[in-house]
Amino acid sequence: MSATPGTLGLIAGGGALPHAIARRCEAEGRALFVVRLDGFADHHLDRWPGATFGMAEIGGILKALKREGCTAVCLAGTVSRPDFKRLKPDLKGASVLPGIIAAATKGDDALLRKILSVFEAEGYAVEGADDILGGDTLPAGTLGTITPLTDQLADLRKALHVAEKAGELDIGQGAVVCDGLVLAVEAQEGTDAMLSRVAGLPADLRGSAASRKGALGKAPKPIQDLRVDMPVIGTRTVELAAAAGLAGIGGVAGRLILIDRDAIVETADRLGLYVWGEPLPETAP
Amino acid sequence: MSATPGTLGLIAGGGALPHAIARRCEAEGRALFVVRLDGFADHHLDRWPGATFGMAEIGGILKALKREGCTAVCLAGTVSRPDFKRLKPDLKGASVLPGIIAAATKGDDALLRKILSVFEAEGYAVEGADDILGGDTLPAGTLGTITPLTDQLADLRKALHVAEKAGELDIGQGAVVCDGLVLAVEAQEGTDAMLSRVAGLPADLRGSAASRKGALGKAPKPIQDLRVDMPVIGTRTVELAAAAGLAGIGGVAGRLILIDRDAIVETADRLGLYVWGEPLPETAP
Repeated sequence: MSATPGTLGLIAGGGALPHAIARRCEAEGRALFVVRLDGFADHHLDRWPGATFGMAEIGGILKALKREGCTAVCLAGTVSRPDFKRLKPDLKGASVLPGIIAAATKGDDALLRKILSVFEAEGYAVEGADDILGGDTLPAGTLGTITPLTDQLADLRKALHVAEKAGELDIGQGAVVCDGLVLAVEAQEGTDAMLSRVAGLPADLRGSAASRKGALGKAPKPIQDLRVDMPVIGTRTVELAAAAGLAGIGGVAGRLILIDRDAIVETADRLGLYVWGEPLPETAP
Repeated sequence: MSATPGTLGLIAGGGALPHAIARRCEAEGRALFVVRLDGFADHHLDRWPGATFGMAEIGGILKALKREGCTAVCLAGTVSRPDFKRLKPDLKGASVLPGIIAAATKGDDALLRKILSVFEAEGYAVEGADDILGGDTLPAGTLGTITPLTDQLADLRKALHVAEKAGELDIGQGAVVCDGLVLAVEAQEGTDAMLSRVAGLPADLRGSAASRKGALGKAPKPIQDLRVDMPVIGTRTVELAAAAGLAGIGGVAGRLILIDRDAIVETADRLGLYVWGEPLPETAP
């Protein structure tokens, strides 16, 4: 990798991830241009150079990236599926939209890969949020001061297994397991809503602040493009997991982005939750 | 099957299914004794002969079944997982509880099979709710007046596929798919809560009363004991599916219990939803 990477075009949806990426670029002195997707991107992104585009204004986005001298793009943040009939594409958008719509019927993954291919075809390198955030992915083993007990790891490993299997079906990235029972599986509602739902289940099914049990597992879909859509946790994830009575949170080491690692550790330690990175199984070379 | 089956011991949890079974026994002149599980069984069941027991009073339940001359039992209705530490077992309960707790850690299916084995060991035949309800399972093809379009069937078949795969993992029985996208997967929250969640997703992801799309699919877990835990729909299911903007509901023919078939058809026709039974694949003899 070059010591001075070129200007990054950050295509920003909602949530905290684009903000974390922008701050990281700033800290590293890397030039940044933010494409704020209208209706999704957070207003905190306004402090960096950028412009707002509708999500089907692909010609406008490509022109702006070129004008700003971007050499790479990073797609990050949440974007809800549009009602394709209501999109207002520009000329370039209209030419690629049919292919995007066709991909969308095959699931989130196909849709994402199709969108990436549009940028790649224009010569942009695609960088993953995890590449840019550097070391801020989940390390193997215990993060923070609380180590999971063997029983707790059994719940976490089952949650990761269910999340992986659900991912194979392009359903989602997360699951909650408590005492061996699958309490919830994440689909389009997202992790936060799933955790809130667990907090509303009968008290006998789950843990509590006084007696924590169960785990949230987040795993990437096997077919997921890790450059764009790697699972993410932040302090809010830890807080909602705590409110659901869970004992901890885990993911696959190197395959879960930590938004503000120090704050995650502080929150988990304070609320009494473990955060665990399951080592990737060794694969033959 | 004997023309005059013996007295049925109905072990009744919550929901409408035990009530439907009791009414069916009454209509057929079959003697019935209802074991109302404390905290779960609906008070509408009080009009039939029966008694209330805590769910760990297994000795008391077996004694009552014997005293009343029951020859068969049917377990029906919903029971949330207990906090085993808080159960108050009687003597017999205390002797079988360790095995039940061990089974419970392996999932709902293992728990259910273990409980059934306790009744079978005492010489009771176990009858499925669908056996007793006779023809009130989903027939193949269209039920009611609305036939699904080809596109709609694609969503339904994907929902059934996801439900079956989720069932293999002992997660749950139901899923909602709209335009090829998995909107929700059911775990411990149940079908009603899942449908309410879909109704709360962004409007662009789902249908509406004016433009219905998407389907609820309910399929039995492959490892599920169909005698006890076959999937069920009722008018409330249809109403909640309608509120979620769905175009229809479906299951595997013969593998979905209809609670009050006529009312389901009337509700679906009135709200504009199809109800579809997917034929079981032919299997080699």
